[in-house]
Parts: sequence; C-alpha cells; structure tokens
Amino acid sequence: MGSIAPSLAELDASAVKVTRSTNLRDVPLPGSAEELSHSYCTDHMVTARWTATNGWEAPEVRPFENLSIPPTASCLHYATECFEGMKVYRGYDGKLRLFRPDCNGERLVNSAKRSSLPGFRYEELKRLIAKLMQIDGPRWLPKDQPGRFLYLRPAMIGSGPHLGVQKPKEALLFVIAVPWPDPAKKQTDQPGVPYGLKLYASQPDTIRAWPGGFGYAKLGANYGPSLVAHSQAQELGFDQVLWLFGEDRQVTEAGASNFFIVWENKESGKLELVTPTLENQLILPGVTRRSVLELARTRLSQAVGKLAPVDVVEKQFTIDDIQQAWKEGRIVEAFVCGTAYFVTPIRLIRNGDVDMNMQEAGAERAGYSTQIKSWLEAIMFGMKGEESHEWGYVIDNETEQ
Amino acid sequence: MGSIAPSLAELDASAVKVTRSTNLRDVPLPGSAEELSHSYCTDHMVTARWTATNGWEAPEVRPFENLSIPPTASCLHYATECFEGMKVYRGYDGKLRLFRPDCNGERLVNSAKRSSLPGFRYEELKRLIAKLMQIDGPRWLPKDQPGRFLYLRPAMIGSGPHLGVQKPKEALLFVIAVPWPDPAKKQTDQPGVPYGLKLYASQPDTIRAWPGGFGYAKLGANYGPSLVAHSQAQELGFDQVLWLFGEDRQVTEAGASNFFIVWENKESGKLELVTPTLENQLILPGVTRRSVLELARTRLSQAVGKLAPVDVVEKQFTIDDIQQAWKEGRIVEAFVCGTAYFVTPIRLIRNGDVDMNMQEAGAERAGYSTQIKSWLEAIMFGMKGEESHEWGYVIDNETEQ
Repeated sequence: MGSIAPSLAELDASAVKVTRSTNLRDVPLPGSAEELSHSYCTDHMVTARWTATNGWEAPEVRPFENLSIPPTASCLHYATECFEGMKVYRGYDGKLRLFRPDCNGERLVNSAKRSSLPGFRYEELKRLIAKLMQIDGPRWLPKDQPGRFLYLRPAMIGSGPHLGVQKPKEALLFVIAVPWPDPAKKQTDQPGVPYGLKLYASQPDTIRAWPGGFGYAKLGANYGPSLVAHSQAQELGFDQVLWLFGEDRQVTEAGASNFFIVWENKESGKLELVTPTLENQLILPGVTRRSVLELARTRLSQAVGKLAPVDVVEKQFTIDDIQQAWKEGRIVEAFVCGTAYFVTPIRLIRNGDVDMNMQEAGAERAGYSTQIKSWLEAIMFGMKGEESHEWGYVIDNETEQ
Repeated sequence: MGSIAPSLAELDASAVKVTRSTNLRDVPLPGSAEELSHSYCTDHMVTARWTATNGWEAPEVRPFENLSIPPTASCLHYATECFEGMKVYRGYDGKLRLFRPDCNGERLVNSAKRSSLPGFRYEELKRLIAKLMQIDGPRWLPKDQPGRFLYLRPAMIGSGPHLGVQKPKEALLFVIAVPWPDPAKKQTDQPGVPYGLKLYASQPDTIRAWPGGFGYAKLGANYGPSLVAHSQAQELGFDQVLWLFGEDRQVTEAGASNFFIVWENKESGKLELVTPTLENQLILPGVTRRSVLELARTRLSQAVGKLAPVDVVEKQFTIDDIQQAWKEGRIVEAFVCGTAYFVTPIRLIRNGDVDMNMQEAGAERAGYSTQIKSWLEAIMFGMKGEESHEWGYVIDNETEQ
C-alpha cells in the first residue's frame, strides 16, 4: 500500500547477551553412560529468535534448558527444521578449534532457505559458537586433555504459534554442545577383524531422496522417514543403509554420511578414489566429503609412503559397478565420511543376497582412508605443522568460570 | 539374553487423567483476528506420553500450554512427526459430532509407523478427542450455535532427549482444538465471479513425493519442504500448488487437499467424476476424498435434480489430459477436498503460460461439488434425516464448567 517495508534486523553475534548458569553440571567421563546417551549437553546453549516483522533479535548464550514450544508450532507439524553437524576440538597446542565452520554456516543458510526459514550472514554462526565455547570450553574440553572434542548441533526451527500450512513467521536458531563417543574408539564385534561399518544396500521400495526434492539440504525431513529402513538394517546386524537411487541403482550416500570407494578403473587400470557426484542434488554436500576430495586432489596425486597415486573422481556409479569390481578383485577399500562418523572404513556391503567384503582383495594396497583421516586430524587438533591451517578456526578468549 | 520383554502398556483413553483449567480463555468471535490467526486454541489439550521401555502412560486432558521439549529432541532435528486434520461439529440437533474419526485414527497409526513412532489401537483417538470435547465443547461450540465447528489437530512427535539418528525412544501424542475460519465464508476477490481456488501447476524442478517415499502418509516431512513452491504460487496470486509427478506430469494432489475433476470422457462421451489413483503411494488417502467417492458412487449413479449421472473413476491422468479437455470444452467442474478446505471449487489452473478457467465451459452442467458438499454437511451437522448416519460419531456427556 505504498508503505516502505522496515528493514529487518540481521543476526549479529556481537550483540550476544550472556546469562551464566549458576548450577554447573558434572562433565561426563569418556565412555560413560551419559556420553553414550547422546543426550547430555553442556552448561549453556545459544538461542536466537527471528520474527517476520522484526528480523533477528539479539542472540543469547544462556543456561541449557528445555525449549518452550507452542503445540501449534510449525516445526512440530510441518517439519520446518534444518540442522548442522559440527565438532569443536581441543588441540594439542591447547587451543579450541572449529573445522571449516563457514562451510557449515553456508549450508545451514541453504537448508533454511529450502525449509522456508530465515537466512543470516553465515559467518555469524561460527561467532556464536565461539561465544558458547569461550564459556563451556574450559570445563568441558580441559586444556590438559588434547585430542578430545564435543559434538555441536546448530539447528533452526519454525517456532511460531501459527498452525496454518504456510511459511513460518517465527523461527528459533539454537546451538547445543554434546559430549559424544569417539567413533575411532569403537571396537570390532569380531576379534581379529579390523573395525569397519557394515552397509545394507537399500531396496527399490524405499528411497531417501529424489530429483526435485531436498536430498541436498540438511532438513529434518531427510532423516525421520529414513529411520524405518535404518532400523531394519540394524536389526539385521548392519550399521547403516547404503542408499541407492533409480532403476540402475546409483550409489548416493550411506546413512548420514558420504560414500567413497578406491578401486582400479576397469578401462584404464588406474587407481581411482571415487565418490558420487552432487549434480542431481540427491546427496548432502558434506564438509568432510569436500575436504577429503580437496586433500586427495592435492596430496594423493603422487605416491605417499606405500600408497600409490590416485585419480580423484566425482561421478555417477551403481551398486552393480561395485559388485563387478568386487568380483574382479579391483576394490582397494571403501569408507564413509561425515562429522559424526568422521572417516570410517567399510567392512562389508550387502546387496540382496550378495555380501561383499571390502577389506579383502585390496588389503595390501589400502590405507587411503587412514592417511586422509590423519591429515584431517592434524588440522582439527592443531598438530605439529598444521597449527595454522586455513581450515582450522581458532576460538580465543576462553573464560574460566 | 534370554530375558522376556515386558509387555508395553497400550494407549487407553479410559484411564485419562483430567486436570481442569482454572483460567478459562475468551472464546474468539467468528471472523475475529484470533480466529483468523490459526493459533488460538481452546482451554484444554490431550497429551499422552510413550516410552520404549514402558509403552503408553495414562493420557491426560489438561490446561492448554506450551510443550517443554529438550533441544536434543528427535522431532526438532529429524522430523519424527506426523499429524491428522479433523473437525468437531456442533449439530443442528444440538449434538457434537466427529466425522469418521476411525479413518483418521487408522491413518495416524499408519503415519506413525512410517515415521518410526509408536502405534496404538486407533479407536482410542476418537475416545481421547471425546474426553477433550466433553470439557471444551459447551463453551467453545455453544449448543445454541449449530453449524459451527472447531479444527482438531492430533499429532505425534519424537520427544525424547536422544540426539542420535535413531528410532525415537520417547514420543508424545497430543490433540489440540483450534477455532478456524469457515472456508465457505471466504469471498471471491472479483465481484460477480463465484469463489474458487486458483491452482498453479508445479514445475518439474519441484516434486512433492516419489515412489518409495512417503507421500501417502501425513508426515511433517511432506509439508515443510513444499512451502517454497507454495509461497511462490501465493506471491503470483494463486491459492495452492497443483502437484504433478513424472515425465508425463501426472496430476497428484492440490496443496494439502485431494483433486477432483468432472469431465466428459473423450472416448465414451460419458460424464466422469475422476480423481488420481492411490496406487503409486504418492497421494494422501484423504478421508474427505474417500467419502466423496463413496457418496458419488452410491448417490450419483443416477440423475439428482438437474445433475446427470456420472461414472466415478480413480485413475492416473496428466495435466495434458486436463488441458486437452479444457480446449475441447469437455470440463464440467473441478474441485479440491480435504478437512481444512472441505469441498472447494477450483476456478482456474495455470499450466506454464496457459490459464484454464474451470468454471466456464461446463457451467450449465456443473453442481456436483455443491451437491456432494451439502450431503457431507448434512452428515457432519446431523441435519434432518442424517442424525444417525454411520459416519457421524456423536460425543455425549458434555459437562458445563
């Protein structure tokens, strides 16, 4: 009606309001029931409220507590929700670090857009996390315990009270920090067999994502509906579903992580490190995935120790391609990567009635995932020579409570 | 380990614990801002908690209030959530009625299963709603105001504090009741033109559902990701998206409602009332959809007043089929149906650069949706002759506060 829309406030981490907890919680020991529960958070959390009329309110770091949510809220009915998975690392140089946090910030903004939730300047996410960890870092990741980490969960939800099926008019961004078991500490269930995931190839009656859908965004809507297949796989003794797509059963991703395979190319005979392409928007563009590709491209184009050079390739391939390579003994190794699983080898893939051992044929030539993992760890934990890698974002100014 | 799993408690409406509100809210007037907000609930709500270890706890009817939800809860991250849309009607015989509530109960159980949430005996849902409306009915739907209704929203969410991507170990079933604007009261935006929805045919780059997905279940995950396309359609002046699927652009559903068309069959020349088939599991099996089909099959196989008999058909058809019928003047009328929209005529469908008026060619032969709507209303509101229709579930024993 001729009126000028007022400009909406931007999310501004520097305006954060801090309220300290007066009732600090016990920090759980590594391997304790609390840690294994994935439900025990640190003393504080970040919250920031957005409204369609005013934009972002000043964010807060405040004592961790339950959220008060209207029963009519959009997030409870229409899955207007998205999240990120990150970690904060206590380095061997005593510093706290995030790993490429702007990649997560940018992806959260993309996911928010796909969910009709508000955007923000993505750099603000790492700044808010820094505010949280300046307070919770000293107690929850003690300086004298390098090599430990906390799992971080930034999330955004449609939090307003409007039950109509419409773009949310209110939203809440929050960040919590959770002690998390170290996946590297997980033992094999068969003595003498190296640890590795067992993947169950999905059946055509269940698909995770489709073209024109939202498989590329980290929406809640990609996870809940996948749990039926996930539970069935777990009941059969598998760790994750290997999600296939299409009549030719293209490989997409494994559970909540990206899939990699190192094999000998049938035509060229050369070694390739391969992962599915992002082109059709079915697959989550993982930050670890991207980092693995970048490291492999720069550091594995020539031999490293006993590891032969590899071509690094993003392309479409099918479960039949894997099966053929397995039959012909061309598989060197396979692994998944993601924030929660980090870089974890794959031991076995079941496709229908065929069980393919991924750690047999290539054992002598394998070791790529271990090498990549140690490069990444060195960056994450500020190990010797990697203290100032550009992927490590150092959080300064920790404040003892 | 040889131990016998304890049997989990069933959901039992008869065990309900009632806590009355001591602070009753004002009942909003029809057409008021409160009613139009879709966010103002009645005085009480139903809640029932489930845990994987014990099953269902005794349900409660208690004062309406915000839910206290752990920031780690599954429903906020993984969209472990599903819901139903229902209404409660104040009849012209003074009675409160639900419409085929067991259909909704059964569908909620199916949706819960698809979301890895717990099941229950579906009849318990209507019994819990009856408990709620026995208390809130007298004030919120006064006996001397027949023809009014409240919107009911049963929902189930994964409510436990476990952040791991896994089947929820805790869940909350709740039911709220919301004053809702009457869609029949909505006026046209062009004087002299009868009211009808304007639908915008979806583009191939946005797909609502896919075979092997979950389009047939009422999951939150079907709604949030559709809001981007919905908002874009609204910004162009349309009411809903007409969701198409596949290379041949099959018609599936319209926004959050089912799609019907009455046209002259090209081959036989006979009149058909057609709706997309449920076979490929892309489409929500609407309770209103099913009721429209059943009424049309029994009551429209012969002429009714000026309405000629129609064949009632569930089949696959495409937007091109509609466009051809429109060009050839074979369309009699089109409408959507669902609980929120009830039975609402469609005025226009835009497919690319073609605007198809649905109320032109067939105007003289139209009237099917109006007829079906009045049959349904008679059952819902217990009008003369339909006081004991089997689709009406009467709620007795209302208690004045």
